[in-house]
Amino acid sequence: MHAPQMPSFTSELPHIAGDVLARIRERRPRVHCITNSVAQNFTANVLLAAGAIPSMTVAPDEIGEFVARADALLVNLGTFNQERRDATEIAIATAVESCRPWVLDPVFVDRSLPRTAFARRLVAERPTVVRLNDGEFSALAGATPDDEALRRYALNQECVVALTGATDHATDGARFVRVENGDPLMGRVTAMGCAGTALVAAALAVEGDALAAAAAALMAFAVAGEVAAARAHGPGSFAAEIIDALYGLDRGTLRTRGRVT
Amino acid sequence: MHAPQMPSFTSELPHIAGDVLARIRERRPRVHCITNSVAQNFTANVLLAAGAIPSMTVAPDEIGEFVARADALLVNLGTFNQERRDATEIAIATAVESCRPWVLDPVFVDRSLPRTAFARRLVAERPTVVRLNDGEFSALAGATPDDEALRRYALNQECVVALTGATDHATDGARFVRVENGDPLMGRVTAMGCAGTALVAAALAVEGDALAAAAAALMAFAVAGEVAAARAHGPGSFAAEIIDALYGLDRGTLRTRGRVT
Amino acid sequence: MHAPQMPSFTSELPHIAGDVLARIRERRPRVHCITNSVAQNFTANVLLAAGAIPSMTVAPDEIGEFVARADALLVNLGTFNQERRDATEIAIATAVESCRPWVLDPVFVDRSLPRTAFARRLVAERPTVVRLNDGEFSALAGATPDDEALRRYALNQECVVALTGATDHATDGARFVRVENGDPLMGRVTAMGCAGTALVAAALAVEGDALAAAAAALMAFAVAGEVAAARAHGPGSFAAEIIDALYGLDRGTLRTRGRVT
Repeated sequence: MHAPQMPSFTSELPHIAGDVLARIRERRPRVHCITNSVAQNFTANVLLAAGAIPSMTVAPDEIGEFVARADALLVNLGTFNQERRDATEIAIATAVESCRPWVLDPVFVDRSLPRTAFARRLVAERPTVVRLNDGEFSALAGATPDDEALRRYALNQECVVALTGATDHATDGARFVRVENGDPLMGRVTAMGCAGTALVAAALAVEGDALAAAAAALMAFAVAGEVAAARAHGPGSFAAEIIDALYGLDRGTLRTRGRVT
Repeated sequence: MHAPQMPSFTSELPHIAGDVLARIRERRPRVHCITNSVAQNFTANVLLAAGAIPSMTVAPDEIGEFVARADALLVNLGTFNQERRDATEIAIATAVESCRPWVLDPVFVDRSLPRTAFARRLVAERPTVVRLNDGEFSALAGATPDDEALRRYALNQECVVALTGATDHATDGARFVRVENGDPLMGRVTAMGCAGTALVAAALAVEGDALAAAAAALMAFAVAGEVAAARAHGPGSFAAEIIDALYGLDRGTLRTRGRVT
Repeated sequence: MHAPQMPSFTSELPHIAGDVLARIRERRPRVHCITNSVAQNFTANVLLAAGAIPSMTVAPDEIGEFVARADALLVNLGTFNQERRDATEIAIATAVESCRPWVLDPVFVDRSLPRTAFARRLVAERPTVVRLNDGEFSALAGATPDDEALRRYALNQECVVALTGATDHATDGARFVRVENGDPLMGRVTAMGCAGTALVAAALAVEGDALAAAAAALMAFAVAGEVAAARAHGPGSFAAEIIDALYGLDRGTLRTRGRVT
């Protein structure tokens, strides 16, 4: 007789994603977002559709209060002005002090040296998760984003690395997940990546295993993207459909559509 | 023989809302909006759908010109930075001087002490209408938002108070209206409350009775929300549907659906 | 026997618009946008739907890098604060130095004297195209926007003038095009004109004849507006439909619907 086989982390992910979504819907975590002006509206709507409560202030004299009462923090560098840089320093200090999870989305660090320098300083503050694409990883880590480089970066920086693209990769240095879901239309709507990172922040508010939270959020969003693509006629309707799909996403759809290795 | 009964203000409200909408569509009032960066796009689209003409500049060297030529002013504290605080002072001074109606939406005053202090100073400038939710009223007025507290606040501050939630309440201290319309999906799209307040500003531009204007705008928006909810599949499609519904809203729908007491 | 008739520029425009769209989809030009906060999201989505890659930073210490690597620049004065004024000076200097085409959209210059003065200084830097409406032309040029005034302005400023309204007019001083396409719903969604100008910038990145690029972009957007209006139930659904229509716009539709003189 054989011992029952331990279900692997990856095979469990659709189930975990269902749990994480259920907890977000029930607990309605507050997610404070420092994000770029292009992404603010869509990000807020994605969080609300998932069940989270977004706030977005960047005023230095109040951001500390907002972060202290939030359950997670998102720092997105898309709008890179002095006001947001100051807000970011205060917000991260508050998150660290209050032991709140926080996610870094180093948008366009591959396009501007001041961003690269600033993002590196933020990584040193130990974000719970860093979510980025190939070019951004290369600029930030100074290495080609292969599996080994991602693992090493996660170990060195003591964070989860979530690299998104046609396939999403996430690792905490020990475990490694690949999510194959998604649709090309996700690249044709602005702020899609930014909103996905916000969903990672919401997941971190209800799930202590940061890799599970990150992978669950990316998977849920990518599956919602597939459902939306089947209904949309182009990127305009897709932007509304992905919000509807996320709002209505159920365990059955996650299980049927989830493609994780 | 009995004298014919005077129709009450509340029973007349669906009719008044129809009149107010018709006047906005015909006169196309200019509404200058100091509002938060998350809400700007949706607010502008709600005003345009209703027939009003929005403008949104906050630059101190030109906001005076914009407000002087506008028919109403919206001050929303959602983005609470120095630029908007300066703009707000100039805008309100111009509105008061030009006898233009203005509406205050003290977003999140219950989440930040600097906002509470700033909002209290603005209330002292006598807004025509203050639109807020339960938590914001409690923080601003220092009182639980029951009918008596709303009435007293309206009398003391000489303004109309419009408290929105599952039921909307509006009072000028003498009359009191409750609007029971709306849909839970309105809480799942960002800037819904902000856009509703902007519609109150548009209504004030064409209706001198501030309570009638505020109640008519809130009712029209809430009824549009019901029409939209019947067509939507989630908050993404709902955001587009409520704009379509407001654009096409007619007297018959207001009369049939209006639930006012 | 007669010599074969030369096809006129205007009769060729639907064909040119098809070529320009095909090149944008294939080459995916980068368009850096300094645009107002209300228009940013919609503008980015229109560019992405067309096949271009938008960026939107206005931070002075990095905008030079972004513009230097972009294929075209959009300068829209809708949000007229100090940060964007500084960013604009750097961006234009970089575009001129790198020989990149750039487009000026002098939003609301008819509503504020500081804008008029600033826009006039920018016109002296020789934008490739100036896109504006009747009121804005009058304020900027100090002349009623008839055909002769547009021609003279284009010659004097050595730029293409694109005047949009119920009919769009474009001239380089020598040639003159009128595009009769479009739908009134385009006036009921905020940022529609701003996004159209961004599409002109994308067209300039792939078409060296600035008049052809401007007219092709305006025509493609107006035809997309007609297709969208046939499917929409109001301005809310129209905003999504025009993005879908632009994404799917083909040569046959441009040829069938194009109304140019």
